[in-house]
Amino acid sequence: MQAPLVITTGEPAGIGPELVLMLAARQAVDWVAIGDPQMLRDRARQIGLAVELLELSPGDPLPEPCSGRLPVWPVALHAECWPGRVNAANGAYVLELLDLAVAACLDGHASAMVTAPLHKGVIREAGNDHFIGHTEYLRDACGVDEVVMMLATDSALHGQVENQRQALRVALATTHLPLKDVAAAIEACSLERVLRILAADLQRWFAVTAPRIAVCGLNPHAGEDGHLGREEIEIITPVLERLRSEGMELEGPLPADTLFTPRHLEGVDAVLAMYHDQGLPVLKYAGFGRAANITLGLPLIRTSVDHGTALDLAGSGQADPSSLGVAIALAADMVGSR
Amino acid sequence: MQAPLVITTGEPAGIGPELVLMLAARQAVDWVAIGDPQMLRDRARQIGLAVELLELSPGDPLPEPCSGRLPVWPVALHAECWPGRVNAANGAYVLELLDLAVAACLDGHASAMVTAPLHKGVIREAGNDHFIGHTEYLRDACGVDEVVMMLATDSALHGQVENQRQALRVALATTHLPLKDVAAAIEACSLERVLRILAADLQRWFAVTAPRIAVCGLNPHAGEDGHLGREEIEIITPVLERLRSEGMELEGPLPADTLFTPRHLEGVDAVLAMYHDQGLPVLKYAGFGRAANITLGLPLIRTSVDHGTALDLAGSGQADPSSLGVAIALAADMVGSR
Repeated sequence: MQAPLVITTGEPAGIGPELVLMLAARQAVDWVAIGDPQMLRDRARQIGLAVELLELSPGDPLPEPCSGRLPVWPVALHAECWPGRVNAANGAYVLELLDLAVAACLDGHASAMVTAPLHKGVIREAGNDHFIGHTEYLRDACGVDEVVMMLATDSALHGQVENQRQALRVALATTHLPLKDVAAAIEACSLERVLRILAADLQRWFAVTAPRIAVCGLNPHAGEDGHLGREEIEIITPVLERLRSEGMELEGPLPADTLFTPRHLEGVDAVLAMYHDQGLPVLKYAGFGRAANITLGLPLIRTSVDHGTALDLAGSGQADPSSLGVAIALAADMVGSR
Repeated sequence: MQAPLVITTGEPAGIGPELVLMLAARQAVDWVAIGDPQMLRDRARQIGLAVELLELSPGDPLPEPCSGRLPVWPVALHAECWPGRVNAANGAYVLELLDLAVAACLDGHASAMVTAPLHKGVIREAGNDHFIGHTEYLRDACGVDEVVMMLATDSALHGQVENQRQALRVALATTHLPLKDVAAAIEACSLERVLRILAADLQRWFAVTAPRIAVCGLNPHAGEDGHLGREEIEIITPVLERLRSEGMELEGPLPADTLFTPRHLEGVDAVLAMYHDQGLPVLKYAGFGRAANITLGLPLIRTSVDHGTALDLAGSGQADPSSLGVAIALAADMVGSR
């Protein structure tokens, strides 16, 4: 029997717990949530959902999936919790959810992990001053040097063309940096590692035998032959040429506003953008609320919603579980392609 | 009788001349091309189009539009021209096309100008070392201090929703700068001037009575309360607050990857992106080859194609005149709203 996929319910004051409950109320789920069972029961009542919790331990077999029933691996809150009101006393709880998920993926009790949003401020206030985000935490928890953040639209998942537009996967060469620090962070060694991880994981988890990757330039018009910046000439192009000589299929560096058009996206398995706001606005526009985040380079499969805790919506039942649904479907697909 | 719209045919070795001919072959045109008549006749023959040229002078009335006939204001090439082979000897010719169009717009012989692409390298080689692009040249030719570059999708033109996505207009706070120089260029005075020009021209030329503008942050997640950069706190937000206090309807600064989603674009007349690759990839993805460039802040109406000279396609007849068609339709619409 295959180990189940697990979902960390994230910040308990955010929308994570209710997104999981909403999915379990609508459909028979074959995955396991990780979180505080009483908090989940309270939240279900608050938003008027009839969801029965089934408490299990890692290694327990999942019963037949059944709509309205949510399998849970229990982790206890450290303090009381009300929707919309974050409490640093629960910062350690949020990390415990992640630690349990990582351990289960590594020891084979889980096939993949999907993360609901956490609140960075809470984690930092709880004494983890240098906490950056899920991605970096998982990198360190798994003991790897470098991971790659990739977002994918739902349609990329099944290779369908949505509204006659090409499905999209966008990976980032740099992630959460102030814009003024981005240019200096584009550096040959790191760019090469990112491209190797991206190509390897497209093969490993997406069943792409010969990945074709389109690479954005750093500067507008990809530097326009050096008139608008020299990083393409001095850093990016030499890296691409070196990797092409090994047989990797790489296009670019291309101007970002040329690359994201149908003619250039055709047949491309993933785009590598140089920084966050070069790649993600178009991905999220294309995804239309149906995109998910994937961490490449880990020894486990991890996907995530593409949104935050939405504290203003928590407890209202108005949040949209679409992105969580996409993240789960994508992780399941990656498990199947493995 | 209203003065005609004029189209500068741009770099003669590029696709500009044939795009104009292709439109004239397909439909009865009520606008005037500016270019070398013999070059245009040669190009029509090369790509097998039966288009008769009608040479006119500024101030001449346009005859009844008729498919297959292209009205032209003649400007002579300085040197021979073959498709795909640029020649710096024709750099001055390209600028003469622009000078004639500007003069005609300012003296009332033209209602608006639309520009086909030019080749910056040619203009620079011809002795204009500091030539940046059309936009900056027109700014100086019109004697204004600041202009704003805005791109619009075709659907924005008519306020239609295309594929259930919101129509888009994206203006830029900075344009053609190396990425490393962008953060330092975000400065309160200039940002305020850009927003004033954008709001004023949405009223003046787009018949938007109370423009609603959504403004991107500079940094990922709009700086995330200062964790990912401080320009939002120190520069952008204070400018927006000052202008809001005057009654302008401004949203933001918002994370770019949140802003470009249907929920945030709803009811927004234009987006202001802080830099080129934050705003244009999503605009061009959304426009799907049907976008045009508009220069705001000039004393005349100027629109442009959103692509380059495509030297590799010139003379083949394979170029796509869609963007030129959108640029013309958009300029005509702006003339009508004036």
